[in-house]
Amino acid sequence: MRIEALLFDLFGTLFDWRRSIARALEAELAPLGHVAGWDGLALAWRELYQPAMEAVRSGRRPYVRLDVLHAENLERVLERAAIRDVPEEVRRRLVLAWHRLDPWPDVREGLRRLRRIALLAPCSNAHLRMAADLARNADLVFDAVLGAELAGTYKPRPEVYLRAVELLDAEPAGCVMVAAHNDDLRAARALGLKTAFVPRPQEWGLQAGRDLAPEEAWDFVAPDLGALAAQMERALGGVAGRG
Amino acid sequence: MRIEALLFDLFGTLFDWRRSIARALEAELAPLGHVAGWDGLALAWRELYQPAMEAVRSGRRPYVRLDVLHAENLERVLERAAIRDVPEEVRRRLVLAWHRLDPWPDVREGLRRLRRIALLAPCSNAHLRMAADLARNADLVFDAVLGAELAGTYKPRPEVYLRAVELLDAEPAGCVMVAAHNDDLRAARALGLKTAFVPRPQEWGLQAGRDLAPEEAWDFVAPDLGALAAQMERALGGVAGRG
Repeated sequence: MRIEALLFDLFGTLFDWRRSIARALEAELAPLGHVAGWDGLALAWRELYQPAMEAVRSGRRPYVRLDVLHAENLERVLERAAIRDVPEEVRRRLVLAWHRLDPWPDVREGLRRLRRIALLAPCSNAHLRMAADLARNADLVFDAVLGAELAGTYKPRPEVYLRAVELLDAEPAGCVMVAAHNDDLRAARALGLKTAFVPRPQEWGLQAGRDLAPEEAWDFVAPDLGALAAQMERALGGVAGRG
Repeated sequence: MRIEALLFDLFGTLFDWRRSIARALEAELAPLGHVAGWDGLALAWRELYQPAMEAVRSGRRPYVRLDVLHAENLERVLERAAIRDVPEEVRRRLVLAWHRLDPWPDVREGLRRLRRIALLAPCSNAHLRMAADLARNADLVFDAVLGAELAGTYKPRPEVYLRAVELLDAEPAGCVMVAAHNDDLRAARALGLKTAFVPRPQEWGLQAGRDLAPEEAWDFVAPDLGALAAQMERALGGVAGRG
């Protein structure tokens, strides 16, 4: 086995968007006198994510960045929650809260260990600036930033994975997609990439019930990035140390 | 003044390609019994760089990565030097030597200091994988890798700078192009980017005489990246610390 690059999903896989966004909503809206279940509001905002991307994936709408979809979805979710008269600058800060999420506790150290094995890059639906901000704010080091924007559509469309592999000048089989979501891995595997499943049972909180277990025999299944690094080191016969 | 991102030229500006490539040529070819002025051979190889890119810039040839141009140019330069029968794997390693160049001595620490001021990204004629390899091998940390490949043409074509600015979700005036070459800065300034000139008088060695001094009043002129960081910190009134 030869592993040249690891591609990472971000939302849910590396970052705890739910608690980060719930906290941002509370910090911005509570001082304005609004009361809500902040966790539920974060979940409701996130629920609009897939349908919004689907318009782009299907070609009904040209590619727009996730900031645009997040802003549109925030309008809808605030309206539904009857939260009104939120100033433009507050809404803007809430959209940018998706650029500053907390990573899961194993991520920073896990990535440092994985980086001794292969090139690392996000391959996410975040646009380039968003992924760069997320990494920087969490002190994560990647070798490049790849993902949806460079393909002009959203995962799990094949173009996103294939463009990442092409830009890495690699073969699909030399790349591992790392994600907490079976769908993401299914799409990557269909194109010949290797797959690593890192479940994040807290991603959806009490709503759980999604992606708690591997739905196929993925190449790697690990409870966190440290354990994934250990598995990869064993599979490669010790750390190759490519850098 | 607001600086959101710094864009870096790589060959010459951050990396001493001449001595690195001369050393690689000697290490690969001397054991095969070849004798040459290795520094001159490195310079001759590099001299074919601009005309090769010009075919792509002008549209006469579709975009190909720098590895392809380097491989073609190596054939020509070896032929001219009457260096024959160089095995394919040796030529391949020589092309890849351009992925492992030594940075100038101020670069690693200078970038760490500059990264407290703004997002950092290469904006180079290196393709994405090459720039990622160069950074990794030299232990340089960037926030993203931008450049020619993402625009499908070569600097100083405007598309390369504009695509970088677009992917950073920035305004041209919020970006600073950092280069040792007046041409690069002229192209960036024409598009509204800010400019920083960091001369590298040793880039061409004894052939010097190029880009030894600023040819316009660039926004910043500094002898190395540490001095550039100090100038920028002053211009911004202390380190803003955006991360």
